[in-house]
Amino acid sequence: MKNVVVTGPPRADPATASALGEFGVATVHEAQGRTGYLGPDLRPAWSGARIGGTAVTALCWPGDNLMIHVAVEQCQEGDVLVVATNSPSTDGLFGELFATALARRGVRGVVLGTGVRDVAELREMGFPAWSTAVSAQGTVKATAGAVNVPITLGGQTIHPGDVVVADDDGVVCVPRDDATAVLAASRARAEKEERNRTAFRAGELGLDVYGMRDRLAGFGIEYVTYEEFAKGDR
Amino acid sequence: MKNVVVTGPPRADPATASALGEFGVATVHEAQGRTGYLGPDLRPAWSGARIGGTAVTALCWPGDNLMIHVAVEQCQEGDVLVVATNSPSTDGLFGELFATALARRGVRGVVLGTGVRDVAELREMGFPAWSTAVSAQGTVKATAGAVNVPITLGGQTIHPGDVVVADDDGVVCVPRDDATAVLAASRARAEKEERNRTAFRAGELGLDVYGMRDRLAGFGIEYVTYEEFAKGDR
Amino acid sequence: MKNVVVTGPPRADPATASALGEFGVATVHEAQGRTGYLGPDLRPAWSGARIGGTAVTALCWPGDNLMIHVAVEQCQEGDVLVVATNSPSTDGLFGELFATALARRGVRGVVLGTGVRDVAELREMGFPAWSTAVSAQGTVKATAGAVNVPITLGGQTIHPGDVVVADDDGVVCVPRDDATAVLAASRARAEKEERNRTAFRAGELGLDVYGMRDRLAGFGIEYVTYEEFAKGDR
Amino acid sequence: MKNVVVTGPPRADPATASALGEFGVATVHEAQGRTGYLGPDLRPAWSGARIGGTAVTALCWPGDNLMIHVAVEQCQEGDVLVVATNSPSTDGLFGELFATALARRGVRGVVLGTGVRDVAELREMGFPAWSTAVSAQGTVKATAGAVNVPITLGGQTIHPGDVVVADDDGVVCVPRDDATAVLAASRARAEKEERNRTAFRAGELGLDVYGMRDRLAGFGIEYVTYEEFAKGDR
Amino acid sequence: MKNVVVTGPPRADPATASALGEFGVATVHEAQGRTGYLGPDLRPAWSGARIGGTAVTALCWPGDNLMIHVAVEQCQEGDVLVVATNSPSTDGLFGELFATALARRGVRGVVLGTGVRDVAELREMGFPAWSTAVSAQGTVKATAGAVNVPITLGGQTIHPGDVVVADDDGVVCVPRDDATAVLAASRARAEKEERNRTAFRAGELGLDVYGMRDRLAGFGIEYVTYEEFAKGDR
Amino acid sequence: MKNVVVTGPPRADPATASALGEFGVATVHEAQGRTGYLGPDLRPAWSGARIGGTAVTALCWPGDNLMIHVAVEQCQEGDVLVVATNSPSTDGLFGELFATALARRGVRGVVLGTGVRDVAELREMGFPAWSTAVSAQGTVKATAGAVNVPITLGGQTIHPGDVVVADDDGVVCVPRDDATAVLAASRARAEKEERNRTAFRAGELGLDVYGMRDRLAGFGIEYVTYEEFAKGDR
Repeated sequence: MKNVVVTGPPRADPATASALGEFGVATVHEAQGRTGYLGPDLRPAWSGARIGGTAVTALCWPGDNLMIHVAVEQCQEGDVLVVATNSPSTDGLFGELFATALARRGVRGVVLGTGVRDVAELREMGFPAWSTAVSAQGTVKATAGAVNVPITLGGQTIHPGDVVVADDDGVVCVPRDDATAVLAASRARAEKEERNRTAFRAGELGLDVYGMRDRLAGFGIEYVTYEEFAKGDR
Repeated sequence: MKNVVVTGPPRADPATASALGEFGVATVHEAQGRTGYLGPDLRPAWSGARIGGTAVTALCWPGDNLMIHVAVEQCQEGDVLVVATNSPSTDGLFGELFATALARRGVRGVVLGTGVRDVAELREMGFPAWSTAVSAQGTVKATAGAVNVPITLGGQTIHPGDVVVADDDGVVCVPRDDATAVLAASRARAEKEERNRTAFRAGELGLDVYGMRDRLAGFGIEYVTYEEFAKGDR
Repeated sequence: MKNVVVTGPPRADPATASALGEFGVATVHEAQGRTGYLGPDLRPAWSGARIGGTAVTALCWPGDNLMIHVAVEQCQEGDVLVVATNSPSTDGLFGELFATALARRGVRGVVLGTGVRDVAELREMGFPAWSTAVSAQGTVKATAGAVNVPITLGGQTIHPGDVVVADDDGVVCVPRDDATAVLAASRARAEKEERNRTAFRAGELGLDVYGMRDRLAGFGIEYVTYEEFAKGDR
Repeated sequence: MKNVVVTGPPRADPATASALGEFGVATVHEAQGRTGYLGPDLRPAWSGARIGGTAVTALCWPGDNLMIHVAVEQCQEGDVLVVATNSPSTDGLFGELFATALARRGVRGVVLGTGVRDVAELREMGFPAWSTAVSAQGTVKATAGAVNVPITLGGQTIHPGDVVVADDDGVVCVPRDDATAVLAASRARAEKEERNRTAFRAGELGLDVYGMRDRLAGFGIEYVTYEEFAKGDR
Repeated sequence: MKNVVVTGPPRADPATASALGEFGVATVHEAQGRTGYLGPDLRPAWSGARIGGTAVTALCWPGDNLMIHVAVEQCQEGDVLVVATNSPSTDGLFGELFATALARRGVRGVVLGTGVRDVAELREMGFPAWSTAVSAQGTVKATAGAVNVPITLGGQTIHPGDVVVADDDGVVCVPRDDATAVLAASRARAEKEERNRTAFRAGELGLDVYGMRDRLAGFGIEYVTYEEFAKGDR
Repeated sequence: MKNVVVTGPPRADPATASALGEFGVATVHEAQGRTGYLGPDLRPAWSGARIGGTAVTALCWPGDNLMIHVAVEQCQEGDVLVVATNSPSTDGLFGELFATALARRGVRGVVLGTGVRDVAELREMGFPAWSTAVSAQGTVKATAGAVNVPITLGGQTIHPGDVVVADDDGVVCVPRDDATAVLAASRARAEKEERNRTAFRAGELGLDVYGMRDRLAGFGIEYVTYEEFAKGDR
């Protein structure tokens, strides 16, 4: 690991990041072709938040939050801090004091591939956090890492300046260069979903709305009555 | 896997299913002799719901929600949709649009041995869901499965038409033929618990309420003072 | 396992235990030198509670709550019941009836290295519980264990009479003899944190507040612009 | 749970069970339409065994091997003992003494949804065992269960008399009534695989052997050179 | 955590430790009343080893092996090094070079509540290791811990000088003061097991050998024929 | 996910890849600055193999091995096939027939972020495989993915043509452009380790060999006798 702090990375447009945030994780993930989702292990510290922002990345040694201190200075209005450790750890690298410093800088939330603590305080102050663990375990500041280098978290590579969207479904990353296109695709998808929602509320079936009924036989799907099935059933 | 959709399975009485729902998972599980519980891995997408309904079952390929589309049509007022995948998966096979379609049909909730998404929206619309994961990961509709066949979930076999009860403690299944008897047993248990609750509120001890005090010696349990114990303690 | 019930263990001062509870898990854990935390697997059954109390310990056979019945009688005002099983289990050894009995005795909460049930009822009655699982699975009363012996839970050894502090961050144990000193240290830490919080709200940086800026070079940390880094980046 | 011991269940033909065992888990699982596999959590205590036999089932309380003692008497030449617990447990319910008793009766192995112990001794005596854990944790004999009732293990329902096949890939169950047909299908599949093996050894490609090449475009798969891809790659 | 190295702790008798090692984990665990087992997560790096020795303990920061270097010097002939980290980690704190140094000092093996690496080399040189993970992840030497303090691992408290027994079933700890008594109890148990083994080889049943047959009815266990059961079965 | 097959990616020098393979995972991981390790979840299907080769990558839908069929054709002498799925899965995407085809092409092994099957056959034919699960669960060929695009596995990004080294410690990836430098660094490290090994065999201590003894006090480490410590110990 090169121990570098990369300054001034270009960021996706903050308004685009905000707008993506409003669509939420599931829609954005679908809109960019079912890519970029950080998986089911990243859970919100408290539920109900939904954010979109631009990534500042930090790579830490497990149980060591030295580089978060360094990363705070690189954060600006509209950012989301994204922290990975270079091996599995649950220690609580982030808590309420960091959140206070970040909130002051206009940072919208934090995503941690390690533990978070001060969960009650974060909920109270409304600072959103996603993490792979909740842990009060304190940390040292003994080993260097990196800030604003590409990091891997939840099976995704996140570059500084990428858009990060997070809500109760988890976290999705949109590459900086794709942000505008994915926003357009999110809008299109949301409109299509609104039409389908209206149809479902009116009692229509997905089999018809999505035109799947005719293809069922092609899948080898056969309809049998309960009585027929029960005869052959064990 | 036979790719069948079984239509018109007999269901437990809907009023019985509702009444079981009101007793909740722990009571119903105890009332039927500590059987039928689907285990600690099935968690509510949002907390506070408590339902009872009749099972419509779907067996899906992992990462593929084709058969949920098929299953919706088989659902009716008072049902609970129960979805298993034929190998472990966390992908989000179910979200808000499915919930909209099911709510329109009077379905009371969904139980998924895979991931759920749109958690914030489900909470907002009050549609209850239990699952083994929360995941925004989108799915394909490429491989057939089955609807209304017996499925295995959380170590239990669930037949279509069985009663499914779910709350913040998880999910329990009551075989269709046992529903009436288990309802009676649940009532009896609840009444006995109410008597015990009153006794505990009055300061009585379980050792006396349950008549256990005299049997403690038979278990080989010995009382020693702290001072006696400390002498022999390491 | 010796099947003993140890009576009358000395307890930490209840007022000290309460005061520690107000500082919360993260602060107390730091104040006693980053020790005593029971790890990320102990989660609250419902969020928002924060307690401090003196430990009554119970060691149970997995799937068997006999010794909790015995332990209730040993509990008094200001205690926290702490339950371990002697091998891994998720079964629901504790529920609303036990909570009713404990609440009557002035017990402040329960910590379980196994499952809890009746989660909705516990939340409603405001009885705090931390556990490694939520499970409705019922239990037997067939095999003896011990009460008020030292137990191991979450990598910590807990003696009867120790202070147990728990909140949304998990659970921390303070040895009885250290309670007064740790309370003083917690106060000192909270005051220091308040000063830092004020500084962060004013826009100061941790790098400066903690005097870390000058030591960064010593860690081998180098600052490079995005453009410089991009040249050498893959 | 009804505490019954079911005697004399009909069994699949022992020669058929043996023959299925020779084909191994993966082939038999495929031959019966990709069903019946007990999943990746059931691992061999030692590697290299491959068996097929008829199931005797036991349902135990976690941490309690009373019903294995009862089940031994129900076992006969050609059987495989299959043990589930009614909630998750890792305790070592089975060891070398049980294996000695079973080997004497001609039992071919054991499958445990809980822990096994005496692993070194089992390997030495060549008694095959599959389990979800290795644990020396000893057990009690305090609570009744059932023998030769249908049990659920690894997402599959196993009836007494079903064929159980196990090897280094895990365990698969073949319903008693299907054993003959699945044996025939296993033979057919093995022959087809032998032809394909020969083709692959000769350097043919699966794309051609399975006739997939023409369908790739239909899947939307596009071939691009590295140079073309690198231009658009991030 | 106090950063101390405790020198010259009294050790259990080395011959007793060796003799306990020969009985193996399961027998010793049973002989001391089913206590002291470190659970199913501690697995051998290579299978077939069986050791008994006296514990030298080390408490490390996760991802940091500084204190193992310190601990080596405290190790002597007949010891087993036991390493815990103060929060969960899988990093490879121990490898072949440490094993070389320890083997030279007559140390019999290592037990790690974290990762081990150089597994192939350890197997080749015959140095036994048990760990909770295999990981090549390298470590720093940046933060102090402790040597020869009591540590908690796998739910057990291990004091320096205690006997540690390990084999393919995992690891068990015998308190120093109990070693002689547990050795005698292990001998008694092994003799009893040999008698039972002989009985089982002769075809006797556990139900009779252990005198359990008459107690089955008291457990509520009922025998029914398959035909009777099938009538009432679903 | 773009459904592309990238042809003809440049590869690291095959001789360099082989040479790196001989040094093994731990040494190579250290030699490139403790980076590139795929973590403890990737385990060998059978133990004792050690390989180095150039990556051909495949990204599959979970439970679907269509793209492995496509990838085989892109493999050549000296390659290692590396397979990821785009969401968590344990299904057995790879078995003995694929291994036969790959062995014919001179491929050195396979690394799978999903399940492998035919473990006994792979061991017999000596084809090395690393995976996150062993599972006989069969798969479909229904949904497209990609070949020779960058993939993320075990927290690392792997580009086609990178060097992959694997042994009993797991898997490490070396970026193509770094292969020559990392080989030199591996040699240097191995030589240094050989010197240290000789010192340790001669009874020298790491504290002296690594010059750590003088720095212990700086870490705050204090030596106390057992007697002194016992006075203050609880």
